[in-house]
Amino acid sequence: MSDHPRVTERLAAFLVASRWEDIPAAVRHEGVRSLLNFVGGALGGCRDEAVSLAVRVLMPYFGAAQATIIGRSERPDALNAAFFNAVSANVLEYDDTHLATVIHPAAPVVPGLLALAEQRPVPGIQLLHALILGVEAECRIGLGVMPTHYRRGWHITATCGIFGAAAAAGKLLGLDRRHMAWALGHAATQSAGLVESLGSMSKSIGVGNAAKNGLAAALFAEAGFTAADQAIEGRYGFAPVTSDSVNPGAITEGLGESWEILANAYKPYPCGVVLFPVIDACLELRARHRPAPERIREIVVRGHPLLCERADRPRVDTGREAKVSLQHSVAAAFLEGAAGLAQFEDRCVADPAVRALRAKVRVEEDSSIPVEAALVTLRLDDGSSFTEHVRHGRGTPGRPMSEAELDAKFADLAAFGAPDVDAVGLIARFRAIENEADVAPLLRLTVPAR
Amino acid sequence: MSDHPRVTERLAAFLVASRWEDIPAAVRHEGVRSLLNFVGGALGGCRDEAVSLAVRVLMPYFGAAQATIIGRSERPDALNAAFFNAVSANVLEYDDTHLATVIHPAAPVVPGLLALAEQRPVPGIQLLHALILGVEAECRIGLGVMPTHYRRGWHITATCGIFGAAAAAGKLLGLDRRHMAWALGHAATQSAGLVESLGSMSKSIGVGNAAKNGLAAALFAEAGFTAADQAIEGRYGFAPVTSDSVNPGAITEGLGESWEILANAYKPYPCGVVLFPVIDACLELRARHRPAPERIREIVVRGHPLLCERADRPRVDTGREAKVSLQHSVAAAFLEGAAGLAQFEDRCVADPAVRALRAKVRVEEDSSIPVEAALVTLRLDDGSSFTEHVRHGRGTPGRPMSEAELDAKFADLAAFGAPDVDAVGLIARFRAIENEADVAPLLRLTVPAR
Repeated sequence: MSDHPRVTERLAAFLVASRWEDIPAAVRHEGVRSLLNFVGGALGGCRDEAVSLAVRVLMPYFGAAQATIIGRSERPDALNAAFFNAVSANVLEYDDTHLATVIHPAAPVVPGLLALAEQRPVPGIQLLHALILGVEAECRIGLGVMPTHYRRGWHITATCGIFGAAAAAGKLLGLDRRHMAWALGHAATQSAGLVESLGSMSKSIGVGNAAKNGLAAALFAEAGFTAADQAIEGRYGFAPVTSDSVNPGAITEGLGESWEILANAYKPYPCGVVLFPVIDACLELRARHRPAPERIREIVVRGHPLLCERADRPRVDTGREAKVSLQHSVAAAFLEGAAGLAQFEDRCVADPAVRALRAKVRVEEDSSIPVEAALVTLRLDDGSSFTEHVRHGRGTPGRPMSEAELDAKFADLAAFGAPDVDAVGLIARFRAIENEADVAPLLRLTVPAR
Repeated sequence: MSDHPRVTERLAAFLVASRWEDIPAAVRHEGVRSLLNFVGGALGGCRDEAVSLAVRVLMPYFGAAQATIIGRSERPDALNAAFFNAVSANVLEYDDTHLATVIHPAAPVVPGLLALAEQRPVPGIQLLHALILGVEAECRIGLGVMPTHYRRGWHITATCGIFGAAAAAGKLLGLDRRHMAWALGHAATQSAGLVESLGSMSKSIGVGNAAKNGLAAALFAEAGFTAADQAIEGRYGFAPVTSDSVNPGAITEGLGESWEILANAYKPYPCGVVLFPVIDACLELRARHRPAPERIREIVVRGHPLLCERADRPRVDTGREAKVSLQHSVAAAFLEGAAGLAQFEDRCVADPAVRALRAKVRVEEDSSIPVEAALVTLRLDDGSSFTEHVRHGRGTPGRPMSEAELDAKFADLAAFGAPDVDAVGLIARFRAIENEADVAPLLRLTVPAR
């Protein structure tokens, strides 16, 4: 990248120049869907052990009661609120996914916007606009550093998410080009998060920090705190440092013409997105053949190399690990005929029947199979064998979640994590967010009345 | 690292098992020197624009008034205090340096300890012990990932410093092996900081975060927040992800037998450590030959490749950039006969005479020259030429700062950044820290009375 394609500068210029009138209707609508899915996810996750424990750890350091933790009664300062809402939205592995990068775009981007919206009135349209731009920035940067970025071991939702958080907050703060570039620079030097942390609570620190430190990046820039001019593309900048396959054009070409949020998928199952077509196939095979577990000789899963890289995890002890375990997801889907929140709780992980079936699951890598597809073969003890080929996992862009499915998912999540809120009312308010002159009151509706 | 040498586990076990009685007297004494140099650095830096601006940015989010910002009157929560004290101690480029890794060990490690010491009484011996162990952890991990870690573009003071901060805070909190390993794990997934940020204020965010997030890592671990077991050495752990030359043995072999803090050097000049032998040589050549600036044809510097990598920066506009500019340091030393805080202020950078001489400085890479050495050749317009060969820059382990030089540096720094504090009294108290039953009162002595 010695030719210095001015990636940081061009991305900043795009973010600053973008106007709401420039955003196509389909993109705006996807922004609403992303926001709705985010809020549902945060309601569902807000009582998770990782969130409650993190609140306990950080509460002695909370600042003034500035902002809402969705679904909870504590009110921390804006930076801490951003942290918790990102953790809540992501902790169940049930959030949205940009398939080409495996980034979960909303969790890092939205919380900073919500926290800012409780400091001064922010119209729904401004929030949506910033959200769409934040998603664009993080996914573009992700495309620019994939595939070696993730392969090396970077947890891309955290490492690229912080750019989205900074870009979105910077847009809401009205930064000019110079200050927006600095916001991206402060994001670059705070970018962190290891794949090794997946399967432990530590992952949530990376995702929470992406939201919190991304917001801080924009606040530092706003105040005139300087950063490197080429923090993304420079010789020691984010892209070459964290990737062995930098593609600057993926970041800067066609900005404002194509929109990455249109490639955002909403999870139908609370686990790693690479598992969706596998689970679809398992549920289909089960429904059709209803095999008695003891008659199953083996279950063979064939899929994209990323499936093995992320989810070949035969030994699992906790629900958290199960969410990135192909073996568990297959076994649970076959035995319980579902892959919902209940199938990724410790109870199901410890079930002896599930454990026994997990041992019969085998995985084969096949780079000719796209990441949104999978083949599952069920072999019974009588030698019979059945194969299901899923080309587009449910919830992927080839088979998107319908509006009704998204609303049902929101309601399920709310019932799981925050049963006292008015889910139906919230869905209606968030779906109509373009009409809100001030989004802060919506946040207060996410907190159960005492 | 597929043989899993259990680096994280072994390092955690060492940190937990270490007793004060095991620490040799020379190591304890170097701990005192490091602490003294840290406090002086923080006093000197506490009024820097980056610190004041950062305080202004973060003040709206401060929690309860728990902890001291050395040299300043604001009292933020413990986590924010850790951030500012790390920034202050490092911002003048005048702190300590572990030469083999180029880590500035104290800035990330000490602030969390001081912040904890204001929550409950901490004896001076416990603070020193934790400091020594924190330095050991960060420098060991640095050795395990160098040289490609820095070469790739990681700002190692931030990226490895966070491990030192977590280890030190974990020791003070009395974590057991399991929880200490988690603290290292939370540090790993928060490790961040790009070389690209050097020369802008953004660098300070990386250093401040190392202290703050390292402290948070220990607090999360203490509460039972789980992390990966092999966060350092695992397939997607810190070491293989951020280095192409992992050496696990450098982290775990001989723990408790050799001590990295003995290789800690204290800066005699407020700039990058690679510049010390260069400046020594320039001051020597100037004193001996007193060349009129207009008679200088060129100045040729020969040194280790790291010198060029870090400091070949002919164009500088600010004092901040000048601290990592070989060309500026040489020109200023020749023209002003000194390389103190004054020579790295914007005034000197903008001086036309300095600017003119900067253009005459040339650098030659020579991998046969150690990083603590340099050759400088002065060529005059009459064809005469003089070379000075410095084998050990002042302030390096081969030519360490004396106790008197360290005290004088402390006094200079205090006069620069916090002229109203009693520097002589502080030096005496910090030098006798092993006798303190509670170090918190010392911190309050660093705050100028109003």
